[in-house]
Amino acid sequence: MKLWQLSAAQASQAMAQGTLTSAQYTGACLERIAEHEPLVRAWAHVDPELAMAQARRCDLELRRSAIHGIPIGFKDVIRTRDLPTRHNSPIYANHQPNEDASCVATLRALGAVILGKTETLEFACGGNFPPTRNPHDLGRTPGGSSSGSGAAVADGMVPLTLGTQTGGSTIRPASFCGVFGMKPTLGRIATEGMKSYSVHLDTIGLFGRSVADLRLLANAYRMTEKPDASPPPVRRLRIGLCRTRLWDQAEPDGQAALEAAATLLRAAGATLSELTQSAQFEDINRYQDEIMQDGGRSAFLPEYYASNALLHEDFKAKVHNHLGLTPEMMRKALDTVALCRIEFEQAMDGLDAVLTLSAPGEAPPGLHTQGMATFNRLWTALQVPCISIPGMTGANGMPIGMQLVHRRYDDERLLDVAQTVATVIDTRERVWN
Amino acid sequence: MKLWQLSAAQASQAMAQGTLTSAQYTGACLERIAEHEPLVRAWAHVDPELAMAQARRCDLELRRSAIHGIPIGFKDVIRTRDLPTRHNSPIYANHQPNEDASCVATLRALGAVILGKTETLEFACGGNFPPTRNPHDLGRTPGGSSSGSGAAVADGMVPLTLGTQTGGSTIRPASFCGVFGMKPTLGRIATEGMKSYSVHLDTIGLFGRSVADLRLLANAYRMTEKPDASPPPVRRLRIGLCRTRLWDQAEPDGQAALEAAATLLRAAGATLSELTQSAQFEDINRYQDEIMQDGGRSAFLPEYYASNALLHEDFKAKVHNHLGLTPEMMRKALDTVALCRIEFEQAMDGLDAVLTLSAPGEAPPGLHTQGMATFNRLWTALQVPCISIPGMTGANGMPIGMQLVHRRYDDERLLDVAQTVATVIDTRERVWN
Repeated sequence: MKLWQLSAAQASQAMAQGTLTSAQYTGACLERIAEHEPLVRAWAHVDPELAMAQARRCDLELRRSAIHGIPIGFKDVIRTRDLPTRHNSPIYANHQPNEDASCVATLRALGAVILGKTETLEFACGGNFPPTRNPHDLGRTPGGSSSGSGAAVADGMVPLTLGTQTGGSTIRPASFCGVFGMKPTLGRIATEGMKSYSVHLDTIGLFGRSVADLRLLANAYRMTEKPDASPPPVRRLRIGLCRTRLWDQAEPDGQAALEAAATLLRAAGATLSELTQSAQFEDINRYQDEIMQDGGRSAFLPEYYASNALLHEDFKAKVHNHLGLTPEMMRKALDTVALCRIEFEQAMDGLDAVLTLSAPGEAPPGLHTQGMATFNRLWTALQVPCISIPGMTGANGMPIGMQLVHRRYDDERLLDVAQTVATVIDTRERVWN
Repeated sequence: MKLWQLSAAQASQAMAQGTLTSAQYTGACLERIAEHEPLVRAWAHVDPELAMAQARRCDLELRRSAIHGIPIGFKDVIRTRDLPTRHNSPIYANHQPNEDASCVATLRALGAVILGKTETLEFACGGNFPPTRNPHDLGRTPGGSSSGSGAAVADGMVPLTLGTQTGGSTIRPASFCGVFGMKPTLGRIATEGMKSYSVHLDTIGLFGRSVADLRLLANAYRMTEKPDASPPPVRRLRIGLCRTRLWDQAEPDGQAALEAAATLLRAAGATLSELTQSAQFEDINRYQDEIMQDGGRSAFLPEYYASNALLHEDFKAKVHNHLGLTPEMMRKALDTVALCRIEFEQAMDGLDAVLTLSAPGEAPPGLHTQGMATFNRLWTALQVPCISIPGMTGANGMPIGMQLVHRRYDDERLLDVAQTVATVIDTRERVWN
């Protein structure tokens, strides 16, 4: 086994035991990047010397946390004080912030190695596509907008990355790339220092190669009360199976994957029940889009005024209120979503989690699509925590993620349940290219 | 009349007509600051040379907008690329960001003069008090946390300032200082680049010396559809008089001021009706506090880890979840507030605005209090736009603001109604010290 194949949780344990140094592990990741980056194009910026200097410093220090010495990549819409932050926008082509985003500063203070910046759709929401390819099939998208964050973890270049999600930008690439992804409850990780889009939706997302990896990050952000996982036995699990009102927008192999995962869980002893959503949910994805587009009216105003010629038409359209959103429409969107939130969480009474699709199916071919956020928009609007668990595959052998959802603020319970579910549905033997 | 006595709207008009230069107006503001700052202590940082250089450059350029050449002050929790941003925290004593906050970048691109940084309660939410005094009585607080932003406008040091509001940090100092203040609908001005506290509450606030001043800023942020105001005739105004369920927490002169304002409006021909709030509103201020304190669990995490010894106990308590907030409590708080929002806006059917108190009464004596946010928390939680209109006074002759409230996204209608209401209740003859 090569060092870069270790998950973050495995590496953390080895470092704590003194059998692995950060320099060894970070160095192995950098070698993997040097080898595979020309194919995968996951990185907007990596500074190997700076990364190794951080790693060596970590090795000289007392361990500050479980994440001490672990290299982490950050989506390039998240500000870093020692690496450029370009948002995949020509406006920021030479941009170097002098402050870390809150989510970066937290991990840096805990001893993490800030390895590099990962490719993103422009401003995480439109315009320029990233050059990133899906490590499972270089002709396919890794999904987006956190394209590089998903692909880098999937390819073994780095064990952990941060992304963002305003529509489906974390859960979808996690699904397409066959890695674990988590969108926490809105507000549980501060978004300060990421490029903003919508206050009602913007969320920092997490990528790792196991639930234990996600928990390392969740612990760092104090989203957990207990230091260790306490996954419930699968026989006690009561899972709500939610096909949503958008089931006919899932592809046949997406639908089949959800049924297969449900079958595996039932066979392992879990109790599954159907969770349906009332007519109130009928237009929730449209409402999510209206809330998001409304955010764009203010989010891109500085670029609109100061750098208009370099601003992609996608963002000008948002500033111009291209949907013609009215006060009445906005109130209707926000209030309906609020009522759906109450309905959903009441329906979860007696359930340990809800199982649904992470994406309609496999990653589509081509790099000028990022696939559809159909099965993400509603959950982002609800502000609930979601985890995508890999393990299932589609007609072309590409990964299809299963999404577990919980109530707001039940991020820790969700992590525990996801750990149990992953042991049932993610029985892949890891094969690395 | 001295030049610094011109409101922003008056100065803008004079500059457009070519009868006033930005250098003259900015210079006059700087002279006023030099004279009064030792008394009022509104400013965390002013760089007169930098301000004058900006003003002279404005005078050489084609006018970019109505705000071109107008000097503006910014609360010191809002990042500025050419002025320190200290948050009134020892952690940031030598801090100089290299990026403007979104709200600053927008105004800079439109040609505004970034005059300086105004004093704030530490991180706009606890810890160190600012040294700022109320210009109407130097022994009294100007309110907070946007203390300097309120006091600077009240004292004639600058015509416009930006602040923030997460609890009552804009409307309350506007009330105590006898100036116009506006808290827009959540999300209508991007908060990117301000120190964050709670995603559900954080709002950029506006201060000016007239409704026309506020509109200048609202236009700059594209919160308006029409370039000009269209204030409704007072005889057509239907105003909901809302004493709230917290009426007994208002001081006698606060109560009297609201009744007096209502009497003036009725006498001018407006129709006033009682707007009551159901039992659902009983605990809304507590829910607002829970939502806010929950935000503090993540907002101060970087400082908690990286600069623990310099972090005030107030913020450590928030990180430690001092209220013992549980997932169940958070859902109850957020959902009750969502239902109150729907109730309030339905109750506004047929009304042009709601009239309520901006603060319990006059600014209290002393600089180690900032007064109570009793009549702000609920509206901040509802995410609705609010404007504080000066004109009424209390037992000690101190200002008491009247708060006008509208539905979310009806910021422009609120500005129009406020302009009409201000002509009725703000008949003060301006007396400058």
